[in-house]
Amino acid sequence: MPTVLFAADPALRDAYLPHLAEAFAEAGVAARLVCTADPAEVDYIVFSPGGTIEDFSPFCRARAVLNLWAGVENIVGNPTLTQTLCRMVDPAMTESMVEWVAAHVLRHHLGTDEHVLHQDGIWRHDATRMPKLARERPITILGFGELGQACARALIALNFPVTGWSRRPASLPGARCLAGPEGLDEALRGAEGVVLLLPKTPQTENVLDARRLALLARGAFVINPGRGALIDDAALLAALDSGQVGHATLDVFRQEPLPPGHPFWAHPKVTVTPHIAAFTRPATAARVIAENVRRGEAGEPLLHVVDRRAGY
Amino acid sequence: MPTVLFAADPALRDAYLPHLAEAFAEAGVAARLVCTADPAEVDYIVFSPGGTIEDFSPFCRARAVLNLWAGVENIVGNPTLTQTLCRMVDPAMTESMVEWVAAHVLRHHLGTDEHVLHQDGIWRHDATRMPKLARERPITILGFGELGQACARALIALNFPVTGWSRRPASLPGARCLAGPEGLDEALRGAEGVVLLLPKTPQTENVLDARRLALLARGAFVINPGRGALIDDAALLAALDSGQVGHATLDVFRQEPLPPGHPFWAHPKVTVTPHIAAFTRPATAARVIAENVRRGEAGEPLLHVVDRRAGY
Repeated sequence: MPTVLFAADPALRDAYLPHLAEAFAEAGVAARLVCTADPAEVDYIVFSPGGTIEDFSPFCRARAVLNLWAGVENIVGNPTLTQTLCRMVDPAMTESMVEWVAAHVLRHHLGTDEHVLHQDGIWRHDATRMPKLARERPITILGFGELGQACARALIALNFPVTGWSRRPASLPGARCLAGPEGLDEALRGAEGVVLLLPKTPQTENVLDARRLALLARGAFVINPGRGALIDDAALLAALDSGQVGHATLDVFRQEPLPPGHPFWAHPKVTVTPHIAAFTRPATAARVIAENVRRGEAGEPLLHVVDRRAGY
Repeated sequence: MPTVLFAADPALRDAYLPHLAEAFAEAGVAARLVCTADPAEVDYIVFSPGGTIEDFSPFCRARAVLNLWAGVENIVGNPTLTQTLCRMVDPAMTESMVEWVAAHVLRHHLGTDEHVLHQDGIWRHDATRMPKLARERPITILGFGELGQACARALIALNFPVTGWSRRPASLPGARCLAGPEGLDEALRGAEGVVLLLPKTPQTENVLDARRLALLARGAFVINPGRGALIDDAALLAALDSGQVGHATLDVFRQEPLPPGHPFWAHPKVTVTPHIAAFTRPATAARVIAENVRRGEAGEPLLHVVDRRAGY
C-alpha cells in the first residue's frame, strides 16, 4: 500500500484531505494518506508552496512529487528535488480561467466599465458610434497549452479572431497558431487584446517589454492571469500613459499581495484583481492526484510531468 | 423597376443610402431608391420611427413595409397599415447582442464590478470563497427567437445551463426549452440569471412582475436588453431592495432617454446602459432589405414577415 504524504500548505488540509480520500477510493487506489511520515517510507508527495517540505533529499523512495497548482516555479528549481515532478491540470481550474478570461476580454471589447463607473443620469447614447464586433477585434494569447487553448476555444466561439503563441508548435482549429522565438513578434503585431497565460520561467520573464508592447495595435488591452513576471511593469505603465495600451487587467504580480502603494492600484487604466482568476478546486484536483498515484502504482506513465529543463 | 422609398428617420439617410444602393446592386435588383415619391408609385417602404410616414393608406401599390429595426411595436398597431410588414433580422445586430449578453452574464456571474469599482489598494483574496462555475449557474432566457437562441448558444458554449422560454415551442440542442403560458413559471423557477429578449406586445408587458421575480433563486441577476415594458419597474426595485434580485443591468426603458431622476440611475444594484446592447448595422441590414425586395420582385415569400395578431 503506497504512502502518500500531504506536504502542501497545512491550511489546505481541511479542504483537500476528504476529497483525496474519496478520489483514491474512486480510483481504486488503496493508499495510506498521511500528513507526517518517515521520509524513507513515502511513495508520493503532494506539494504546494508554504508546505512542510523544502528538502526532498530524504525522500529516497518517493516516485513523484505531485504539485497542487498549475505553476511550478516555486519548486522546479529546488536542487534537492530529484523525483519526477508533476504539475496540476485541474479541469475545474481550466473552466474558471476560461470564464475569467472571456469575461474580461468582453469587458474590454465592449467597454462596459464606462457604464459600471458612471451611473450619473447622463444618457450616453451615440448612434453614430458603432462599436466593433468581436470578429473585428483580434486577440492574441501567449501560452497555448491547456489553459491558453481552452480560452481560445471560448473566444473563437464568441467570434474573436484568435492567435495563439507557444514555445513549442501547437495547433487548434480556428486559431492562428505561431510558435518559437521567431513567431512571437508576429503574434503580437496588430493585436487589439493580449492574454498572458505563459508559465514563469527564465525565458518568459518580461516577455511583454516596451518593444513588444509597441507591436500591439494602439489602445490594445492587456490581460494577465498568468504570472506577474511576464510583464515589464515600468514598460506597461509607460505604454498606458502614452495611450499605446488602452487598459490592463492584472490578476498576478511580482509581489503578492500587491503592495498598497504600487502604482498599478492608482492608475486609472489598470484594474487589479487579487489573484482570483482561477482556483484549483479540491474535488477535481484530488482526482488528478489520485489518477497519478494509480498510474504510478500500475507502472503507467504519469500525467503532466514537468520538463525540468523548460521549467514547466 | 420597383420604387423603394426610404421613409426612415432622415438622420439615417447618410448611413443607410450608400449601403442600400450597394446591396441592391449585389442582389441584382434594379431598384429606384428615393427619399420622396408620389405614394401611388411606391413599391416598398423602408421604415423606422421618426421617419417621414405615419399614414400608410396612400401607398396603395406598396407590397411591403420593411422595418429597419428588430422591434415593430411602433408600427404594428398603426391602423392605416394594410401592407405586409417585415421586421429586421440583422446578423450583425444578433452578433452584437450575443456579445453584450455574454459580457453582462459573465460580469454578474464573476462579480467583476467588485474589482472595477474598488481599486483601493486592499487585496481581497479569500481562498476559502470558491466562486461558482458557470456550469453551476442556471440562466433563463425569455424570448427564444433569433436573438434568444443565439445568446443561448454562446452561454451554452461557456458552460452555463440554459433554459429558453418562448410563446411558441422552440428547440435548441443543449438548452432546456419551455413554451407557452404554462411553461413560464417553470422557466423562471430557481434561475440565477434572467435575460429578457421578448418583443414588446400587450402579452409581454410586465411579464417580470413581483410574483415571477419571487420564483428566481435568491440574489439572481436580471439583464434586460429587450424592451423596458417587459419589467414591472416598481416590483423590480422592491426585489432589489429585499435582496431577492442581486443586481439588474437594464439597457431599455419605458421612457428613453431614462430621465435623470429615475430611481434606476441612483440604485446601487442597478446598472443602466443607454440602449446600446445591439445596433442594427447599415451594411448588413441593407442586405436584408435588398433580399426582401428581390424576393418581392421574384414572387418569392418575404423574410421575417410580422404576425400582426401576435404583434411581432
